[in-house]
Amino acid sequence: MDLPSIAMQRAVEQLSHLPGVGKRSALRYAMHLMNMSDSDVRDFADAVLRLKSDVHHCHICHNLSDSDTCTICASSKRQRGVICVVENVQEVMAIENTQQYRGLYHVLGGVISPIDGVGIHDLTIDALIERVRNGQPDPVDEVILALPTTMEGDTTNFYLHKQLAPLGVKITTLARGVAIGDNLEYTDEITLGRSILNRVPFGG
Amino acid sequence: MDLPSIAMQRAVEQLSHLPGVGKRSALRYAMHLMNMSDSDVRDFADAVLRLKSDVHHCHICHNLSDSDTCTICASSKRQRGVICVVENVQEVMAIENTQQYRGLYHVLGGVISPIDGVGIHDLTIDALIERVRNGQPDPVDEVILALPTTMEGDTTNFYLHKQLAPLGVKITTLARGVAIGDNLEYTDEITLGRSILNRVPFGG
Repeated sequence: MDLPSIAMQRAVEQLSHLPGVGKRSALRYAMHLMNMSDSDVRDFADAVLRLKSDVHHCHICHNLSDSDTCTICASSKRQRGVICVVENVQEVMAIENTQQYRGLYHVLGGVISPIDGVGIHDLTIDALIERVRNGQPDPVDEVILALPTTMEGDTTNFYLHKQLAPLGVKITTLARGVAIGDNLEYTDEITLGRSILNRVPFGG
Repeated sequence: MDLPSIAMQRAVEQLSHLPGVGKRSALRYAMHLMNMSDSDVRDFADAVLRLKSDVHHCHICHNLSDSDTCTICASSKRQRGVICVVENVQEVMAIENTQQYRGLYHVLGGVISPIDGVGIHDLTIDALIERVRNGQPDPVDEVILALPTTMEGDTTNFYLHKQLAPLGVKITTLARGVAIGDNLEYTDEITLGRSILNRVPFGG
């Protein structure tokens, strides 16, 4: 697509760097931005720039934070002996939205994936192990592994288990099974098969 | 969705102002931007800001342009007596991509739509009529109406026809019919019906 303005062309190129955005959507975004007021566009650009300058990672759990320690790690209302290990910040938000979990988190920043060139030292695995070993800032009783059920997630789980088990901490993982409200007819075979094998007492 | 960082929250809100972007996509975009390098994010924000400062509208046809006159209006290779009237800049690009049209354009900036509060004076209709009446910068022989086939497009066509016809200019519109390569079975009834009524000599 040949754009009649170089500035427009450049904006479309930049916007199409966003994940899942092609040239056509980028053009729609650019046209929309162009029709916004000067001050609105400045606010937009400023909010984008502040993503780099103002958003930090918590030094304890590596969750996103406006300061050095995130609100979850800083809270006195959380169960400080339980750490839920997740791949990314999005999973922290998903679990927080359930309002069922009162422990802390540890964000790995990915999972071990040799194909993508992600090794142990690209993730915050060492920091997690130190956190459990030293009991800093708090002694850890339980580590919940909440990584994706992919080959990479399983590899990471396996490695974490091997490293954490000798430290005497309880290691758990999320219950897997047919989702609440799901129709058995449309549940994938692996989930259904496992949920029959791992059946639980009725009313339990 | 409760985000752990105010700066992140603000960026997600700003990104979700883009057309068709919800909170979840905005979060994906924000995470992606956060993981880009400082200089890449600066380039991104700069390209957005330049949409307001560097992109202008051509003073003749109102197409996008980096200067006061767009490259099409400034070109000596175009048929200067033919003006194609379109709704938006996107249509100029679509027609240019066909490489079949060598005339000039006139971008209305919308169509007459009382429901959306778009009247004649919100569009560049007066400028078009002046352009035809005065023959400035060039005498106009033909005006091609290439507006959308909606009620608003038809209303605008009707108004333009009423204004332009007394000026003695030839007024044409795009040929409508079954698209090349389209299966008749799946062509909408109105298009198919009209293309039978408006049939043309074979080999014509």
